[in-house]
Amino acid sequence: MKLYDLAVSGNCYKVRLFAALAQIELELVAVDFSRNEHKSEAIFSLNPWGQVPILQDDALVLRDAQAILVYLAGRYGGEAWWPGEAHLQGQVMQWLSVAANEIQHGPSAARLIKKFGANLDAPLALRRSEHILGLIDEHLATHQWLAAGRPTIAECAVFPYVALAWEGDVDISPYQNIAAWIARIKALPGFIAMPGVELAS
Amino acid sequence: MKLYDLAVSGNCYKVRLFAALAQIELELVAVDFSRNEHKSEAIFSLNPWGQVPILQDDALVLRDAQAILVYLAGRYGGEAWWPGEAHLQGQVMQWLSVAANEIQHGPSAARLIKKFGANLDAPLALRRSEHILGLIDEHLATHQWLAAGRPTIAECAVFPYVALAWEGDVDISPYQNIAAWIARIKALPGFIAMPGVELAS
Repeated sequence: MKLYDLAVSGNCYKVRLFAALAQIELELVAVDFSRNEHKSEAIFSLNPWGQVPILQDDALVLRDAQAILVYLAGRYGGEAWWPGEAHLQGQVMQWLSVAANEIQHGPSAARLIKKFGANLDAPLALRRSEHILGLIDEHLATHQWLAAGRPTIAECAVFPYVALAWEGDVDISPYQNIAAWIARIKALPGFIAMPGVELAS
Repeated sequence: MKLYDLAVSGNCYKVRLFAALAQIELELVAVDFSRNEHKSEAIFSLNPWGQVPILQDDALVLRDAQAILVYLAGRYGGEAWWPGEAHLQGQVMQWLSVAANEIQHGPSAARLIKKFGANLDAPLALRRSEHILGLIDEHLATHQWLAAGRPTIAECAVFPYVALAWEGDVDISPYQNIAAWIARIKALPGFIAMPGVELAS
């Protein structure tokens, strides 16, 4: 099973992190952005969006980190990470939407601007970051985990760009509950780092 | 089962449309935006995001249209709308992410600006609209439905703001495959309209 991967991508890290936590073996295929490989015919033929991650499992090709998490957890990760009960799937899904929407257009956008020079509205990305981080922090004031009372793919979808927010000059130090949640995630067996996200010290 | 609802909201329409197609009975609770009811304590206590739709099913409260679709389909709609197989869930999930991300920040944002005076970047919303509509049209050139070879909750999540795009001055007339897909959706038994989206003529 191949993951078309970029080391500095938080979206790719969502998948690498989940695979590490759930002990799923992936063959990483590095896509070289400095050589514009993500705009190559080979990548566009797999994903018309021209983005990574892309998962290839025999004949199945999936784009979008959240979709890959749902597939991998459902197929190889088991109920622990993607519950079968409808009300728990609904709870997890709330956070997959947050990852695709508010996190992508908040802390991830701030990082794209600051670290990669993306031409986006920086003050808007910072305002959106503060808003969603405040909501996550409030939720974590009364919950150890985002959904279902246990670590799920919701953590893998939301954690990466929260932990990388500092690279976009988003200050997460005011959010005590987020800090405690990050520590809990880093303590999970199998947790892996990425550039900008360190292992627990 | 209560749905806190706003008639002109495409996100609420996602849920109303699915419930109509899958014959699920909902009690609609109209939230009066002109009287700022969505900023009331009652709404914030159910959803700290201060947004509708909100679903209340006994003790369960869910925000986010995509999460509500996953829950309703899993609990009351059956395999037809939200398949149990992991690879098909992954396919559907790709489009739930598109609804939460590219559609929300494309055609939905363009409509918020034009129809409701939202202070957002109009040229950016139009560029994003053209990009995602082009990708959807390309996908529909070789697929009758977005995922799984049949109508699923992916249709309910993506269709509303595509059909409402004209209210944001987004021209969807170049997209022939989208036009045919819209016609197929409108022909589904139980299809309902909303302000800005007419029944099939």
